[in-house]
Amino acid sequence: MEKVSENRCFDGRQLQFTHRSAVLNCEMRFGIYLPPQAEVRNVPVLYWLSGLTCTDENFTHKAGAQRVAAELGMAIVMPDTSPRGEGVPDDPDGAYDFGLGAGFYVNATETPWSEHYKMYDYVVKELPELIEAEFPVTDKRAISGHSMGGHGAIILALNNPDRYTSISAFSPICNPMDCPWGEKALGNYLGADKAAWAKHDASYLVRHADKQLPLLVDQGLADNFLVEQLKPEALEAAAAESGYALKLRRHEGYDHSYFFISSFIEEHLRFHAKYLG
Amino acid sequence: MEKVSENRCFDGRQLQFTHRSAVLNCEMRFGIYLPPQAEVRNVPVLYWLSGLTCTDENFTHKAGAQRVAAELGMAIVMPDTSPRGEGVPDDPDGAYDFGLGAGFYVNATETPWSEHYKMYDYVVKELPELIEAEFPVTDKRAISGHSMGGHGAIILALNNPDRYTSISAFSPICNPMDCPWGEKALGNYLGADKAAWAKHDASYLVRHADKQLPLLVDQGLADNFLVEQLKPEALEAAAAESGYALKLRRHEGYDHSYFFISSFIEEHLRFHAKYLG
Repeated sequence: MEKVSENRCFDGRQLQFTHRSAVLNCEMRFGIYLPPQAEVRNVPVLYWLSGLTCTDENFTHKAGAQRVAAELGMAIVMPDTSPRGEGVPDDPDGAYDFGLGAGFYVNATETPWSEHYKMYDYVVKELPELIEAEFPVTDKRAISGHSMGGHGAIILALNNPDRYTSISAFSPICNPMDCPWGEKALGNYLGADKAAWAKHDASYLVRHADKQLPLLVDQGLADNFLVEQLKPEALEAAAAESGYALKLRRHEGYDHSYFFISSFIEEHLRFHAKYLG
Repeated sequence: MEKVSENRCFDGRQLQFTHRSAVLNCEMRFGIYLPPQAEVRNVPVLYWLSGLTCTDENFTHKAGAQRVAAELGMAIVMPDTSPRGEGVPDDPDGAYDFGLGAGFYVNATETPWSEHYKMYDYVVKELPELIEAEFPVTDKRAISGHSMGGHGAIILALNNPDRYTSISAFSPICNPMDCPWGEKALGNYLGADKAAWAKHDASYLVRHADKQLPLLVDQGLADNFLVEQLKPEALEAAAAESGYALKLRRHEGYDHSYFFISSFIEEHLRFHAKYLG
């Protein structure tokens, strides 16, 4: 693990590291914010999963989350959104919605993607093991994310409910089995058999959840991707059907940008803090 | 004036516009944040001047200021850092510290710079006239900035003390007559005669201020530019000599980045709010 940068921020430390990922078979970069409390005790961790085209840096620079994390005594870990580097295949057309920057938090089973695209295992297992070995953190984990990362947060946590205390999402892709982004990504990474897709679909998982985790979703109503790609109504219908206590909030005028995320990230951190203890 | 973008943010509006600047003789872009209060009344304005290499967007995306501006009912205007576009000359070597992105908030008198590089007049007169004609704002103005923009905030306000209520700066270039960045910029824009430089030097102006404006300066002690370029001790000595009530704070561990700015921007906005009324 090699430190790329360190910046003091709200009396804590904003750090960036690279490390060799065995799971992804490439070098990866991640960001971590350690609040001032981490100088004297282990702190719980919020994992933040970013959306299409992002790296670890978008949330680090634009969300304004460090202020609240410093108050609450919460670390935040920001992984990249896909494997990277020489030898990692990309969308043949260089499209933004598949391949580099678009790992979709699944373990690919199809060639040529399966050699590197294992973001599910990376985020659920390998990265937390590294974080918990190297930093002053507890094994209490919450998870949140935006768009593709909101999808990731929900599916990773609902498939591993004992590993997370709580889930939140901004503008998540709620029903990837039934939207263009999801159909392209799941089809390419997992193959044509849709049976393999279901456990990567937030709405499916909410409909069939054995164990409920606290789940907060914020969605802007001026979001360009709302109708075609995000489909919060599918998640809402699934929750109604299974009796899942989903808290879904719609916000007039807000779009898909970090201006939306920054406006409500404080509430997400306070939501997770309740469950992280 | 043409709108480039609009994003809802903390129940206000983050806007970006382009307009033709007569003073700079080119098309310019700026950002403006209008807090929710601007829907029902005119609000005062904080002008934010960015540092070397920045555009209007760095502060917009990274400072986290909108949250506090929304609470206080304060607009924030973020101009670009130099004239731009075809025909605007740049540093012959493409250096980052002169020319494009480095207008230093002066009115150039030397060719070829004098045709476009009039950032002093643009920020003090032309832009506020446009802002006050087109947006729901009052004529109460405060000014702040970072590095080159901290220098700009201090010199523009102390030369025009009736136009501003208060000044603040992060890591300002305090004594440009006596540091490499300043000597290069003032020498090229204003010529070799240092008599013309003095009124563009924050320390000179603080030493000779007829009217004191409230002035808050924050400086990180882990700032790579502290010793060679920024020299807060020169400003401090000038203030001691003239009896200027400078509030200069040094912060252990903080560097020159937006992680520093974001950590203390709330205090700057609250400082200005006291004087903007």
